[in-house]
Amino acid sequence: MPETPVPSTATSHPLRILITGSAGFVGSHLVERFLNEGHTVIGVDNYISGQVSNTDLFRDHPRFTFIEADVSHGIPYTGEKLDWVMHFASPASPPHYQQFPVETLMVGAQGTQNGLELAHAHSAGFFLASTSEVYGDPHVHPQPETYWGNVNPIGVRSCYDEAKRYAEAITMAYHRSRGVNTRIIRIFNTYGPRMRPDDGRVITNFVHQALRGEPLTVYGDGSQTRSFQYIDDLVEGISRLMMVKYHDPVNLGNPDEFTMLELVEVIQRVIGNNVECVYYEIPLDDPRQRKPAIEKAKEIIDWVPEVSLLQGLKEAYKL
Amino acid sequence: MPETPVPSTATSHPLRILITGSAGFVGSHLVERFLNEGHTVIGVDNYISGQVSNTDLFRDHPRFTFIEADVSHGIPYTGEKLDWVMHFASPASPPHYQQFPVETLMVGAQGTQNGLELAHAHSAGFFLASTSEVYGDPHVHPQPETYWGNVNPIGVRSCYDEAKRYAEAITMAYHRSRGVNTRIIRIFNTYGPRMRPDDGRVITNFVHQALRGEPLTVYGDGSQTRSFQYIDDLVEGISRLMMVKYHDPVNLGNPDEFTMLELVEVIQRVIGNNVECVYYEIPLDDPRQRKPAIEKAKEIIDWVPEVSLLQGLKEAYKL
Repeated sequence: MPETPVPSTATSHPLRILITGSAGFVGSHLVERFLNEGHTVIGVDNYISGQVSNTDLFRDHPRFTFIEADVSHGIPYTGEKLDWVMHFASPASPPHYQQFPVETLMVGAQGTQNGLELAHAHSAGFFLASTSEVYGDPHVHPQPETYWGNVNPIGVRSCYDEAKRYAEAITMAYHRSRGVNTRIIRIFNTYGPRMRPDDGRVITNFVHQALRGEPLTVYGDGSQTRSFQYIDDLVEGISRLMMVKYHDPVNLGNPDEFTMLELVEVIQRVIGNNVECVYYEIPLDDPRQRKPAIEKAKEIIDWVPEVSLLQGLKEAYKL
Repeated sequence: MPETPVPSTATSHPLRILITGSAGFVGSHLVERFLNEGHTVIGVDNYISGQVSNTDLFRDHPRFTFIEADVSHGIPYTGEKLDWVMHFASPASPPHYQQFPVETLMVGAQGTQNGLELAHAHSAGFFLASTSEVYGDPHVHPQPETYWGNVNPIGVRSCYDEAKRYAEAITMAYHRSRGVNTRIIRIFNTYGPRMRPDDGRVITNFVHQALRGEPLTVYGDGSQTRSFQYIDDLVEGISRLMMVKYHDPVNLGNPDEFTMLELVEVIQRVIGNNVECVYYEIPLDDPRQRKPAIEKAKEIIDWVPEVSLLQGLKEAYKL
């Protein structure tokens, strides 16, 4: 990552940061970054979708503490004053959240509120990991932060989508009515090392299928599009956003758009083998397109993603 | 109300029904109806927007019990087996919910979940009072239940709108994953006796202003439309829906549409005096139009509203 003129946690005095979902994919990369920058990190996870191996990476680090807890039932932190509470806990892939619909709803509601209360009690910042899923199956393309979304409130995905919309609403309510110093990011599809192999999202599925020599499972005709952000770009954006006072949601994603069939081609280039595809019916409420408008992040934190899909895949899977 | 061939709670064996928000406008009318039909009713309210006078109406009734409690923190019911848990608790008018944004969010999330858990424990039905606000500022007109809505997740109204969308999502999650026998109604603007004079919605404002001889406050140019349902029509629809197995949301509202200026004329006819108007800037995220499509209610419970605005206003205000 080139040196940057904008402030980030890299140039900050040492902070004490509590991260919910620290054993998850994104959470574990935040832990790594903040520890490397000299900050103190308290990780919290209940391993409903996080991985113990992601905690083990940092268990012996002198500035890392881990609390095993379900943040929907409270965050049992009794230590020194926190600078940040970062709420990244939630099942995030459709197979996971559909397996745990009530838990997913709770970590969006009670979990977010417990984080906000903790931040309020410590006069700390509160950082919400929201999602491009708040845009649902969008009618506006690409999606700017001002777009209100198209989400089915009673669909099979609503346990995640509505939980995150609720999380944004309660974050704004604590900001407006209780003065909490909040941030909200809407994370678009992100990939990188330490994703669960059974994550169930397309990059993981494709790469693991290709590596095993199996045909790639394409839903529908493969013309639906997605954009894919490498984890390092996301973490850089998060780090910068912590250093500016901006409370409305900010999209963080890579606007390079690929149809599923184009993704198949890139995977083929990375893996170096011919791959075959097998086609299945498209799941309920699956969005047709999803692509971030990132002008806001560019404007307020001078951020653009720097890692191409080809580079990122090679890096993620050491190919 | 004419006799009806469709089943309703009027023809049911005696039921034991717990109603959250029993001291609210709609809740109190449900209590009255169910007691009159021979059922046993447990009312629950914390009076954040309900009125003690609505509890006093039934306090001496032998089949009525009242529990003062905030259902967001639990429903302390320890009595005999319930047949229904009906979740009608929530601030519902913009001035109330904007005064209590966090409480409004909580009664939609924790409150709904506590009701679902209670219903599950008693193998009782769960009946959710949702709202036309889940449609937000709709792009589809009139709004059928299949419309996904246009809600600003971070707007000043989102503490109510997103709480209700979340409530629908968690209700469907308990139905799908835990087998709870659920109902969801989306209530459109409703008026009638026992609305709070400081309710803040247009009918209450206009009638009270007109009765005091004050000018009526119109927001914007008065061309935005609303439809107004008389409380008795709503209660009839609720009663019928309890008797059919249907789990997706059902709109209950009156499709007769009035611009604010047309409403002024009706008020003038009812009051019998000339009224003047004073114009203010339109509030943030105020919906332009809202009108229910009620084909679904007609199809499954043979329900249409029967009370005209003129009749209803005369009845509500004894004019």
